[in-house]
Formats: sequence, C-alpha cells, structure tokens
Amino acid sequence: MEGVDILPHERSKTQFDVDAMKIVWAGSRHAFEVSDRMARLVASDPAFQKDNRSRLGRKELFKNTLRKATYAWKRILELRLTEEEAGRLRFFVDEPAFTDLHWGMFVPAIRGQGTEEQQQKWLPLAYKMQIIGCYAQTELGHGSNVQGLETTATFDPDKDEFVIHSPTLTSSKWWPGGLGKVSTHAVVYARLITNGEEHGVHGFIVQLRSLDDHMPLPGITIGDIGMKFGNGAYNTMDNGVLTFDHVRIPRNQMLMRVLQVTREGKCVQSNVPRQLIYGTMVFVRQTIVADASSALSRAVCIATRYSAVRRQFGSQDGVETQVIDYKTQQNRLFPLLASAYAFRFVGEWLKWLYTDVTQRLQANDFSTLPEAHACTAGLKSLTTTATADAIEECRKLCGGHGYLCASGLPELFAVYVPACTYEGDNVVLLLQVARFLVKTVSQLGSGKKPIGTTAYLGRVQDLMQCRCEVQTAEDWLKPSVMLEAFEARSARMCVARAQNLSKFANPEDGFAELSADLVEAAVAHCQLIVVSKFFDKLQQDIPGNGVKQQLQNLCYIYALNLLHKHLGDFLSTGCITPKQASLANDQLRSLYSQVRPNAIALVDAFNYTDHYLGSVLGRYDGNVYPKLYEEAWKDPLNDSVLPDGYNDYIRPMLKQQLHNARL
Amino acid sequence: MEGVDILPHERSKTQFDVDAMKIVWAGSRHAFEVSDRMARLVASDPAFQKDNRSRLGRKELFKNTLRKATYAWKRILELRLTEEEAGRLRFFVDEPAFTDLHWGMFVPAIRGQGTEEQQQKWLPLAYKMQIIGCYAQTELGHGSNVQGLETTATFDPDKDEFVIHSPTLTSSKWWPGGLGKVSTHAVVYARLITNGEEHGVHGFIVQLRSLDDHMPLPGITIGDIGMKFGNGAYNTMDNGVLTFDHVRIPRNQMLMRVLQVTREGKCVQSNVPRQLIYGTMVFVRQTIVADASSALSRAVCIATRYSAVRRQFGSQDGVETQVIDYKTQQNRLFPLLASAYAFRFVGEWLKWLYTDVTQRLQANDFSTLPEAHACTAGLKSLTTTATADAIEECRKLCGGHGYLCASGLPELFAVYVPACTYEGDNVVLLLQVARFLVKTVSQLGSGKKPIGTTAYLGRVQDLMQCRCEVQTAEDWLKPSVMLEAFEARSARMCVARAQNLSKFANPEDGFAELSADLVEAAVAHCQLIVVSKFFDKLQQDIPGNGVKQQLQNLCYIYALNLLHKHLGDFLSTGCITPKQASLANDQLRSLYSQVRPNAIALVDAFNYTDHYLGSVLGRYDGNVYPKLYEEAWKDPLNDSVLPDGYNDYIRPMLKQQLHNARL
Repeated sequence: MEGVDILPHERSKTQFDVDAMKIVWAGSRHAFEVSDRMARLVASDPAFQKDNRSRLGRKELFKNTLRKATYAWKRILELRLTEEEAGRLRFFVDEPAFTDLHWGMFVPAIRGQGTEEQQQKWLPLAYKMQIIGCYAQTELGHGSNVQGLETTATFDPDKDEFVIHSPTLTSSKWWPGGLGKVSTHAVVYARLITNGEEHGVHGFIVQLRSLDDHMPLPGITIGDIGMKFGNGAYNTMDNGVLTFDHVRIPRNQMLMRVLQVTREGKCVQSNVPRQLIYGTMVFVRQTIVADASSALSRAVCIATRYSAVRRQFGSQDGVETQVIDYKTQQNRLFPLLASAYAFRFVGEWLKWLYTDVTQRLQANDFSTLPEAHACTAGLKSLTTTATADAIEECRKLCGGHGYLCASGLPELFAVYVPACTYEGDNVVLLLQVARFLVKTVSQLGSGKKPIGTTAYLGRVQDLMQCRCEVQTAEDWLKPSVMLEAFEARSARMCVARAQNLSKFANPEDGFAELSADLVEAAVAHCQLIVVSKFFDKLQQDIPGNGVKQQLQNLCYIYALNLLHKHLGDFLSTGCITPKQASLANDQLRSLYSQVRPNAIALVDAFNYTDHYLGSVLGRYDGNVYPKLYEEAWKDPLNDSVLPDGYNDYIRPMLKQQLHNARL
Repeated sequence: MEGVDILPHERSKTQFDVDAMKIVWAGSRHAFEVSDRMARLVASDPAFQKDNRSRLGRKELFKNTLRKATYAWKRILELRLTEEEAGRLRFFVDEPAFTDLHWGMFVPAIRGQGTEEQQQKWLPLAYKMQIIGCYAQTELGHGSNVQGLETTATFDPDKDEFVIHSPTLTSSKWWPGGLGKVSTHAVVYARLITNGEEHGVHGFIVQLRSLDDHMPLPGITIGDIGMKFGNGAYNTMDNGVLTFDHVRIPRNQMLMRVLQVTREGKCVQSNVPRQLIYGTMVFVRQTIVADASSALSRAVCIATRYSAVRRQFGSQDGVETQVIDYKTQQNRLFPLLASAYAFRFVGEWLKWLYTDVTQRLQANDFSTLPEAHACTAGLKSLTTTATADAIEECRKLCGGHGYLCASGLPELFAVYVPACTYEGDNVVLLLQVARFLVKTVSQLGSGKKPIGTTAYLGRVQDLMQCRCEVQTAEDWLKPSVMLEAFEARSARMCVARAQNLSKFANPEDGFAELSADLVEAAVAHCQLIVVSKFFDKLQQDIPGNGVKQQLQNLCYIYALNLLHKHLGDFLSTGCITPKQASLANDQLRSLYSQVRPNAIALVDAFNYTDHYLGSVLGRYDGNVYPKLYEEAWKDPLNDSVLPDGYNDYIRPMLKQQLHNARL
C-alpha cells in the first residue's frame, strides 16, 4: 500500500463519530465553527505561507513577520472580525509577533491596572493600533523574582513627573517581546520611589519611540537581544533590551487602579482589592494550559499519522510493519495522545474556574482565590513541562526524518519550550503549590475545610488507610478505584512531607532542605486534578456514536500511564501493591489495542489544516515521501549544483593545492 | 559580589586537586596534554571563530564550514599532526563537516570491508583527501532496517560491472552527511543481485562526482536534503539525497573482504569471519558513548557556572541567593554532573572492551561478541538518551537566558539529539539488549555461565532472595549494598519478563506484546553496568588530593538518583523497602551538600576553553551579564535603528493608512 492509500484505509477502521469528536475537542459547536472558518481562511491565503520560515535569515524572517502581522490586521478590519475571530485568526497564522504582546499583555495590563480615566485615554489608541505596546517587566539580572527588579521610577514633585531610570547594567529590561524594533509604548515595571521611600514594584506607561519617525526617544536605548533557539520559531519576534537614562513621564502614566500617587507624592491605596492581580494570573495561566493542549495535539497528530505511514522491519505479505503497530511505539505515543485530550479538558475547566473566580472577586469574595491560584500555577507547570517533553518525544517517534525542519517538529519544540520558563518558572510554581498544600494539611486539624481541588484532603483519614481493591486488570476501569489511588497517593505524600517539615525548628529551613521532595508532592496533586477533571468530563452528556467510549479509553490510558511512570510514589505510600501495578500494565496494553484502530481518527478530530500543522510527515493525505523529496530541493544549497566555496576550498583540497585556497 | 568575583570565590572553596582531576577526566596525562594543546590551538586561532554561527543563513554557514574544514586540514598538514592530534583538533573545531564522514565512516568502511588490494588502491587517495568519501546507507523509506534497503547492485557478467540503481522514490539515499555537495565518492549499500538471485546488502565504492569539475556523473542525481533542527548545528553539514539511474561500476569496487563476487558472478564467502562487522559496531558505539560524556559535561559546565553566577529570590545581606544553593537546583543539576563522570568512565571501559574484542576476533574467539555487542548497544542507547534530555534540562536550569543562542545550549541540543536515532534507534537497540538478556536467562538452567556484564545473572538464585540491609542513610555508602540493589533489580526484572514471555505459545508474539516491559529490563541492566563500572573505577589507584573522595560522592549521587527515579522497579521487585528508599533520599541530600563547594571545580576539571564551550553563560570568568549585553548588539536586526519593513508595514499600521502598506 502506498502512502496515500494508508491513511484512508486507517480512517475506514474508525469506530466513532469523528465529526462529533471535533465538537468535543473544540469545546462547542460555535467554537468549532469559528476555528474551522479561521483555519481555512489562513490556510487558503498564500500571504500566510510559512513553510519557508526555516530557510530565512534573521532580517528577512523578521520583515516577513511584520508583513504578515500587518496583513492579518488588514484582513481583520476588512472582514470586521469579532475579537474571538481575530484571536483565532492570529492563532492559525502561527507565528510569534509583536501583536501577541500588544493584545495579550499591553492591553490587558491597562485594562486590569489602569484607572477608568487611563483606560479611556489609552485603550482606544491601542485598539486601533495607533500605538503598539509591549510589557517590560523582566530584566537582564531578574526574571522570576519580580520584587528584585532594579529599574526605578522616582517621583519628582517639582515637575509632577516620574523619572524612569536603569541604575545598573543588570537592570536593563531584557526579553520583552515586541520591544526590540516595533513597540511605540511599553508598560514598564519599576520600583516606585517617592519622598525618598520605596513602595514596591508598579507599572508605568512609557512612550519609547517617536510616533513621527519611530526613533527611540531621548534617554532611551533599545535593541533586539539576538538569536533564540531554533529555526524560525521565536526569531520572528523582536525580544528586546531597553535602558532608561532618567526618562521623564507625567505622573498620570503610572497605572493607578490599585495604588495612587498624589500630586504631593503620597501613596494612597484605592478601594480596588489588590487580589485582582491574582485574577489576571489565573486568566493568563489558563490560556497557557489551553496552548499546551494545542501544541501537544499538533505534535501528536504529526507523529501518529507518520507512525501509520512509516514501515520498518517485520514482514507481513512482504511489506514491512507500520511502526504504529509496535507496542513500544504505542507505549510512547498513545499516552501523549491521551495527554492532549486530558490537557484540553482541564483547560476547559480552568476557563470555567477563571469565570468563577472573577465573579467572586466582583462580589468581594476572596475565599477561593488561594486554591484557584495554586491550582492554576500547578497546572501551568504540569502541562507545559509535559508538552515540551512530549513534542521532543514525538520528534523522536518519527525517526530520523523528525530531525528535518520539514517535519515541523523542530520548530514546534523550539517555539514551545519557553512556556516552561515564562509566566513563572515551572519549578518555582510547583514550590508555590507545595507551600499551599502543606498549609492546607497543617490546617486540617483546625477544622478549616479544604475546598475545590483540595477537597479530597478533607478525607485524609480515610485516604491514609484505604486499600486498593483491584484484583483483575478490568478492576482498574472503575473511576472510583482510579481516583482513590491518585487521591491516596497525593494525600499520603502531602502528609508525609508536612510531617518531615515539622521536624525542623525553622520551617523555612525545612522547606528549603526538603524542596525537591515537596515538588514531587505538588506534581502528585496536580496529576490528580487532571485525572479527576477528565473523569468529570466523562460524566457530561457527550453525543456522537462511540465518542464517549474513546474518551474513556484515553482517560484510563492517561491515568494508568502516570501510575506506571510514578510507580515509586504509589508503592512507597502503600496505595497499591506490586501485583496491582502489574495488572495496571496489563490493562494499559489492552487499552492500546483498543485505541490503535482509532488513532488516526482521534488526531483527525483536532481538525488541523496541513497549513497549521506545517509538517510534511503529518500531511492529512499521508503522501509523505514524494513531498519530502520535493521539499529538499527548495533548500538554498540546491540553488546551484556546485556549492559556493567549491573553487575556494574543495577544489584546492582535492587537487593538493592548498596554497590556492582562500583561507 | 559581581559576576567576575563569584567564580574565583567559588574556586577558592575547592576541596580537591583540580589538576589531578583533569588527568582523571582526560583518561591519562598524555590524553590530557594532547587535548589541552589542540583545544588551545583552535581557541587561539580567529579562523575557527564560531560564535556567529547562529546568525548565518544556510549558504553562508555552509561555505564557512568548507573554509574551516579546509583550513583545519591545512593546519594538520603544516603542523604534521598525528592521527590522534588531528582527531582532537577536529573535535575542538566543533562543527559538523564532511570530514567527519570521510574520516569516521568512509575510511573505516574501506579499512574494515575492503580487501588488501582495495585498501591499497583507495586508502592512499583518501588519506591525502584526493578523494572525499561518504557513507550512503539509509534511504528515504529505510532507516533502522538495513535489510530493507531497496537500492540494487546487479552484476552484469557481460561487462564485468555492477549496475547500481534506485528502483523507487523511497530507495533514494537520504541523510548521508557530506553527500549533498562535497563528496566525490561514497560507500553505497545496496542489495547484491547476481544471476537473478539476491545475496543481501553489501557495500560498493561508487564515484559520484567528476574529479575535474565536481559535477555529478551521468545517471547520478544529488542534492542537499534541506534544513535540520536548530541554529547552526547540523546545518553546517550537507546531508544529502542521491539516486542512481543504472550507474555502472567495475566489479572490483564491491567491498569484498567478506563476500566475493567472481568474474562469473558467483558469490564466494572468504575466510574472514562475518563477525568482524560487529567489531566495527562496538568501535563506533564506544565513540558515541565517549561523545555523550563530552556533550553532557559541556552542558553541565555551562549550567553549573551560571547557577553560581545567577541569583534569584532569597536575601542574605541584601543580595539574592545563588541559584546553585537551592536544593531543587542541586537535585536537577548534580545528578547530571555525576552522569557526565559516570559516562566518561563507562566510555573508557568500552574502549578497553573494544581492544579486548578485537584481539579475540583476531584469535578467532567469538565467545564474548554477543555480550559485548549487547552491552555497547545498550550503553549507546542509555547514554545518548540521557545526554539529550540532560542538555535540555541544563538549558532550563539556566532560566530564560538558556533560550538565547548566546547560551550555547540550543545549538548543543540541536546538534546532539540525532545521536538518539543514528547508529541504531535507541529503542530498537534496547530491544536487542532485552532479547539478549532473555536468552541469557533462559540458558541459566542449561549450565551456560553468563559472562562479562551479565555475570551477575549467574548468581540469580541469591539475587532473587537477597534482602537489602540498609538501616541508616550512611549504609547506602557501601559499594556492595548499592551494587546488590542494582543487580537484584535487574535480575528480578529479567527473570519476571522471561517468565511472562514463556506464557505465550509463540515467543515472537510474546516479545512483540511485552516489548515495552522488556525495554525497561534492558534499561535496568544498562544502568547497572554504568554504576558497576563507576565503582570499578574507584577501585583504581587515583592520585591527587581529595580526588577520589569527590568521585565517590558523584558515584553515589549517580546511583542514588537512579534509584529514586526508578523507585517503582526497586520496590515492585522487593529489592528495597519504602523506608530504605527514604533513607536513600536523605543520603542523596547530604551528598549534594558535599558536592556544592566543589561544583565549580568539578566542571573546571573538564578543561574546556571558552571557545569550545561557546556559551556566554558558561564563561570561565563568570562575567555573564556585560557579555550578554554586548552580544545582543551583534544581531543583524540591530544593524539599523529602524527595522527593514518599518515604512512598508509598521508605519502604515500606526498611521491608519493600511492602503499604503506593501502587502
């Protein structure tokens, strides 16, 4: 069977309604329709071509991105797209650009931290892109620790102005996307100093470049910070460096929704709760979780299709075996497929959580905030780490050809991995979760009832003693059994860590010493959340022939694979026995066999266009090898038969005339 | 303390003789001196500058590599370098080039598979680089499975020639380095057909390009296969595609050391044992293990130095804490440092193994070959997988700045990861190891004594029953205790897998079904080898104040970290108890504290020049931030203040005049 016949054959074996699954994946019929329409719009427009990206030099690449971003904006205006549609369009253009920061950070910062008056002044300009903004927080010497920022904003009461200044080299703003070459404005985070006193870090709207000729304003030095990981990838973005030499801005450009500085330089707290910031963090992190499921599903789609097309070894009727039929391949690939769905559903739930938190904040109810904050921090960490690893695993699952840019996987990896570091380093975030868990456990005695995703800790007595009832492999297919195992594991790890901490005279010393252990408890807790939200999803009414059955299989694969990967946790806390673990493995293998005939349809359900996938290996039609061959000839090295340098270097070497070489 | 003061301060705390450790790392004083001399030679010569690599477009990059390779050759001749010195010089030039394949694959293939006569004809040409050769094995549709290659070499008795032909698109040679633009010759692997019969895959010397004008010869189509993962990285190499349209070569260009084709087209086996091929595989794979320790140590050196320079959070005397002081950082970094040393020593042992195998082969003793083959296959897999993961982990350990090409880590990752796929896909190799282990276990009853790295399986009765005696954390610091735990784990896993296999009527079905489990047993066995060879190293006389103590710490960190990571194995096979696992963790933390003051010196011992490291973050002097800042301005985007595309795209957007944009 040729490549182009394989995938249709695979699709004919599908045991569920793929169209119905597409709706489940998208979240709703509406979401599906918007995404589908925008994806096709982008895919069918040659202006959005992207398969040449890896071959472009930095300048060409960047200019090309400017063109696409401007063109996308023109199309958004022409077609009068809604905010939702515009967002999806930018998503499918699939190229990091200054607009990401403008819409994703600059505008939300003003919306969230600006006063009514400030919003009225700045937002209309930003909405029309009469100004382009970025978000200047991190510094050369300061990333994770916002309170350590060095840039200063000193109030000068004589002139009613702030003086923004970079006192050291390490205080240079460093990393902000859109800053290096494009942005006219930035929200700059700096230490507020007034009347000689420090008042913490706050945001200031600072104009960076002239609106006439785009030149940096006096006192401002800006540039690009240079090449980043990968071909194309984030090199389409002008991550920038910025220093201030006593730059003056009017007082009313400090974002004053929470804290105001008066004409006299006094700090006055407004009646807007500070906790609003956490609401924003919940929002940003839930989008990161949603992005994780997108990136992961994309990699899985490529690896799954190519695993069906590719044949190696074995021999049935003289042809080699499809690599997707090898258990070693399934054992690596199918858990990632399951993770893509798992992350999708937990992301959907996080969206709900954000709405819930926002409504409560508006009603001055802050009670759920710490739990919601811990849970989003943890899920951001869990899903981004897993996704980054999974993309690289998918690349390896494609064998040698995964190493070609034409596979799409190298760029996907390079463009994705920063998610593990930005918006909270993943390990730092897990430590925050651990801190919250330890606190929750320590308060159990006081009668304070744990809520939300920590509610299970309220049953800690039972969970410390329960015994897993699994006696056959099929017993693992009971939600209650699975959930109890994950709850018991997490609860026992949390309690054990809390007990170990209590042995230290100084709790902070203990926390530092045991931090690696604590991180593991946080991971266990977060994995439980993902598993339980997947089970919750299965409780919903899910229409479509066979759809729920497939999701059930994936849910159990996700959970059982975690159980196997973290077997040490489950066994050392006595949640399950080695015999039960072995039964779990048997069940896992059986589930792989059930997923196998549906694998291609399960990735088709992501509804990705070939344009968005950007992978010769992942083509919908499976026509991999002829297209790989075709693609090769587009490399600049193939512009000529003889390479540049033949006469200068190769020929003198071969002719034993090195004195003729241009060295 | 400024960056430049930190590392000297760190070095002042060292508790061992760094110069002595350098000798241990290098393997001998001689090896150290050669490496040191060649590293300095390369680092001090501006012609070998490489820090601009990520900024070059493909053509420029490739031409630059041609220049360096030719220049390196010129220096090798001028300085009359020995083969060893030339190899080290190329190593420190640190840029994949056609010469790697010429010296590393083409020449050895002729040496290993050519007859005396063939060697006399071809080797002198190759040694002088009057011809440049590559190794054309893999095809577009065929990678791992050499027996599946489609290219044919059909003997034509009328003309006493072979006709080399590519019958299908998927039979196109694909991937060979040096093929795309440079090589004049190739060893081509093809199915031998004579008198209408197939005789398996063999190697043929084929001229590809004219030695006059470098144009491809008639019937030959060659090109580059296009961009690969990463900036710089393997894009300096012309991995190529090659098809043959009935290309004729003389009969005597088939490599005939093992199998000869007579004038009449008959196949005659020579008296040279076929097993010689395995000797070559042992050789190639031991170099891959050595390369793994080099790549890993380089990443660890960068991450360790920058972890000392970088400060985040915390506050002692008003300054933030060095991130190397966080236990979470140590828990990720120090096991990688330990792995670098572990892989170094197991690589050293493999070099000895190769010598041993070669001597035996010459004496017609093939008895140790299967074991040596399994062990090198497994160690190739283990060390390359671990190294690839470790480089990316080191990148993350550097925080956001690790994402900059200036950190050196993105390119190191991208250039390294193919090692997981080439010379045997890592999972396929582990399956070979598993097959060997299962066979070994099945023969235990027959009285056949397992040898070499499987000797412990001879004590399987004891190992199935032994109980770990650890009662305190310190008890883990006994080599016998640690080795027994690893031996018992591996033995019990092998036996359990073999028992499960025996339940299948057809062993091959069982092997396929349980392959994921089998891979885990292979990993356990290979980890045991690394641990035991580290302990063997510690038995040697190791001079230098405090050197052995440091190596001991690293050895235990390596083993205890594996024990923790694979706790499920150890607990489910009953090799240790949860309590003992917890004591192992306590011991691990204590070892981290002992390594901490020596960390910088332990990476200094690798003796890497700043040129070779190629990382602003890993600079020997610790002057990270000023140099990062300086580096940024070299990006082409900073050539002008206004970016290309300002007038065409940004200005029309800001001025609300999209009709003026060049879209």
